[in-house]
Amino acid sequence: MSNDNNSLKKLKFNKDLISSEGDRNNIDKFLSNHKGKKVVVVQGLGFVGSVMSLVCANAINEEYAVIGVDLPSNKKIIDKLNSGVFPIKSSDKKVEEYFQNSIKKNNFFATSDNYAYSKADIIIIDINLDVDKVSTEKKELLSYDVDLNNFKSAIKVIASSCNEDVLILVETTVPPGTCEKIIKPIIKDEFNRRNLNYEKIYIAHSYERVMPGPNYIDSIQNFYRVYSGVNEKSANYAEKFLKTIISTEKFPLTRLQGTNATEMAKVLENSFRAMNIAFIVEWSRFAEEAKVNLYEVINAIRMRPTHKNIMLPGIGVGGYCLTKDPLLASWSKLNLFKSNTGLDQSEKGVKINDQMPLFAYNYLMSFFKRDVKNLKILLLGVSYLSNVGDTRYSPVELLYNCLEEAGAIINLHDPYVSFWTEKNIAIENNLYNLLSENYDIIVISTGHSFYSGNEILMNYIMKNDNIFIFDTIGLLSEKEIKKISSKHQLKILGRGVI
Amino acid sequence: MSNDNNSLKKLKFNKDLISSEGDRNNIDKFLSNHKGKKVVVVQGLGFVGSVMSLVCANAINEEYAVIGVDLPSNKKIIDKLNSGVFPIKSSDKKVEEYFQNSIKKNNFFATSDNYAYSKADIIIIDINLDVDKVSTEKKELLSYDVDLNNFKSAIKVIASSCNEDVLILVETTVPPGTCEKIIKPIIKDEFNRRNLNYEKIYIAHSYERVMPGPNYIDSIQNFYRVYSGVNEKSANYAEKFLKTIISTEKFPLTRLQGTNATEMAKVLENSFRAMNIAFIVEWSRFAEEAKVNLYEVINAIRMRPTHKNIMLPGIGVGGYCLTKDPLLASWSKLNLFKSNTGLDQSEKGVKINDQMPLFAYNYLMSFFKRDVKNLKILLLGVSYLSNVGDTRYSPVELLYNCLEEAGAIINLHDPYVSFWTEKNIAIENNLYNLLSENYDIIVISTGHSFYSGNEILMNYIMKNDNIFIFDTIGLLSEKEIKKISSKHQLKILGRGVI
Repeated sequence: MSNDNNSLKKLKFNKDLISSEGDRNNIDKFLSNHKGKKVVVVQGLGFVGSVMSLVCANAINEEYAVIGVDLPSNKKIIDKLNSGVFPIKSSDKKVEEYFQNSIKKNNFFATSDNYAYSKADIIIIDINLDVDKVSTEKKELLSYDVDLNNFKSAIKVIASSCNEDVLILVETTVPPGTCEKIIKPIIKDEFNRRNLNYEKIYIAHSYERVMPGPNYIDSIQNFYRVYSGVNEKSANYAEKFLKTIISTEKFPLTRLQGTNATEMAKVLENSFRAMNIAFIVEWSRFAEEAKVNLYEVINAIRMRPTHKNIMLPGIGVGGYCLTKDPLLASWSKLNLFKSNTGLDQSEKGVKINDQMPLFAYNYLMSFFKRDVKNLKILLLGVSYLSNVGDTRYSPVELLYNCLEEAGAIINLHDPYVSFWTEKNIAIENNLYNLLSENYDIIVISTGHSFYSGNEILMNYIMKNDNIFIFDTIGLLSEKEIKKISSKHQLKILGRGVI
Repeated sequence: MSNDNNSLKKLKFNKDLISSEGDRNNIDKFLSNHKGKKVVVVQGLGFVGSVMSLVCANAINEEYAVIGVDLPSNKKIIDKLNSGVFPIKSSDKKVEEYFQNSIKKNNFFATSDNYAYSKADIIIIDINLDVDKVSTEKKELLSYDVDLNNFKSAIKVIASSCNEDVLILVETTVPPGTCEKIIKPIIKDEFNRRNLNYEKIYIAHSYERVMPGPNYIDSIQNFYRVYSGVNEKSANYAEKFLKTIISTEKFPLTRLQGTNATEMAKVLENSFRAMNIAFIVEWSRFAEEAKVNLYEVINAIRMRPTHKNIMLPGIGVGGYCLTKDPLLASWSKLNLFKSNTGLDQSEKGVKINDQMPLFAYNYLMSFFKRDVKNLKILLLGVSYLSNVGDTRYSPVELLYNCLEEAGAIINLHDPYVSFWTEKNIAIENNLYNLLSENYDIIVISTGHSFYSGNEILMNYIMKNDNIFIFDTIGLLSEKEIKKISSKHQLKILGRGVI
């Protein structure tokens, strides 16, 4: 996966960059080929918006003209899209297939010109809304804040140029209350200024559940959706639209009573997940102390349908959602709903998860027992999730930082990442190239299937002496564990017995 | 359900009561009818042991002679069992069917005589192991302790009379480490004293997942089981035995590496559940503040297979397991494994859940706004779980206490409970009898299906004026909500919008 994937996370709407011109003629020309079709404009061409655009351009039972809008600062991505190169490399073959199909139909155009919004029947908001975390070097969360300014600017850009009867469909994960308390007032003000009838607009919220990876497209097109509107007619319009792009017969839509509810659903989903990961952390420690294989225990527990969602041990939590959504929610409770209490447990979940990699480091040190200064360490995997090249908030970063601070010489491998944006380091994709050196420690830091049953890796390990092997996510099979531990010291997080 | 159900919880093995004689002849006589059959002795005839005895007496592919042993102080239960009256009333018809079948076969005998252990091929331990919680009146948990003395005495009784090659199968929920660190040493000591060969004994652990209610028998016979032994031959024997009483073709057994692992699995299962209930508490408050119907939100989230186990809002957590198992686990980590840290999140889960009913009370008061002194309140349901007559650690107790302290006149109804042992109060089973009075507040405090779509109840509510209705567990249907709220003030926990 290319460098671009990581730069996508920077796609924020900045006040200074919101106006852009120059593509008006190209937009008109593009649309002249699609007379009579509804125009869908997607705001934000990141991990969600770019693929959402493809799904709209390949709608199931409707023909749309799709325009993707992003900032002039993301000209590179816009240019790629318009020159037939999809900016996100993906293991999902449907991505390229859908992109090629949109090229064939010439029904997708990318631009940074806000003129596009004035042509839209439907505007989908897929920009980021970040949480600013203040943490120590060891990722202890000291404070956090939600800055809505960029988000508000992006809404204002739309409101200042869109048509009266447009459907604005918000997919961004927002603090509950955002549609009612932030978006509606901005549009109302702007429509008053423009002498437009605010009653005519449709505002809906339907959060995405996009998972980059082998089912990237399906995570939009073939998955359950929750939606709502600020009023009934908005919800109806959203429903009508979603039915054209999602296989709703197989994956029925769920309408909730209002936008507060759907906004809450999204952050609750992710908080549930984050908290369940945090919960298992202390049990991992217990398993290590009691010499219990927690993986085995959890698989036994998961036999019960009521306990299927119990999580496995691991190095930590990364990615864009689980690391911030519980905070978005707590911030909303305190700030948008003026509650006296935040969501303490959900916040605590984020705090525990943020520090998980520090434990992985300490665990390694407690068994390795030697100073790692000038020792050679190979980290296998830098992305936060298995089989995906996404390094956003990867837990591997803290482990890397700790090892680096301790003076270790670290080599990095990841089959899906060529450049680690957050650390500004080039990543080797070819494992073989890295195995010409001698390592004191090899850490399996991401659960890529690539490392599972990997003969090159196993041969290297079995040919060399005195390597300390550290599996942070329980990737190794029983057979591999037996083989490796017959020759080397092997430790696995959450597994007290090898 | 009868009074006896609640008294069962008191079945503890007390040092002063462990020896009992006098049934030797009856036991010999009973066994003389079952020559050649293996003898299963079940220690403890409470909610688990009594039904476990029935399952053994109705084993799938083996004929056992089953003896249930309990304390002389539980003579009433023993006498009932021997006179053809099963002491636990259950909505599961299989319970009575299995009991009648065991009477027909005359293959189940109850006694308080420890002589039974000397005749056993298999001894199943189903006694309680309680956590002593010290809490304030408002159920704020101040401290807790695990007193193993009674449990140890019960093991010693067995070890002092059992055969050398018996299988001791522990089903009791114990602190992880108990089989290895508590049970093994006791048996070793006792066998040394008796000049028996300790190597010949089999010790295994396989926790039950018994749910009193409509699937009482099936929760043993047709459900997944996890087991382990202190060594391989013990695990093998346990497997062989479990296969005779459980439908293992449909519900395959899971063997774990050791007893620490299975002991941990049980308390982890229940901690997962307790923590997920605690997690949703703060979201219930958020939903109330944001005027969101959290039930609707959670049902939408549950569409995702990865999020099926997210819990619904409610009045609180009761029962014997979820209120203590996280503490058993944390106690074990600190005391049996000498860790520096307990299981903080899991303990916190118990603390939050213990106080949930206090919030229910405060919520009611915040909307009712009047002094409840001398007002009449009807509580619908006192048991901790819907459709079951079990009042152990029922969350309704704290709500009741708060209302009582505030001077309310409280009437209680439960279709499954005739006597509330913990409060020493007789409970009316007939709702009609209670509806001759005028109530200021009606609280749905347990989610018995009996209250759902109940015409008598609905007619009463619609005929009377000015009743404040408080549904603490989201029992009411949308139709009922609409009807009731057209006439009365109605509040539902976790539902900010009616």
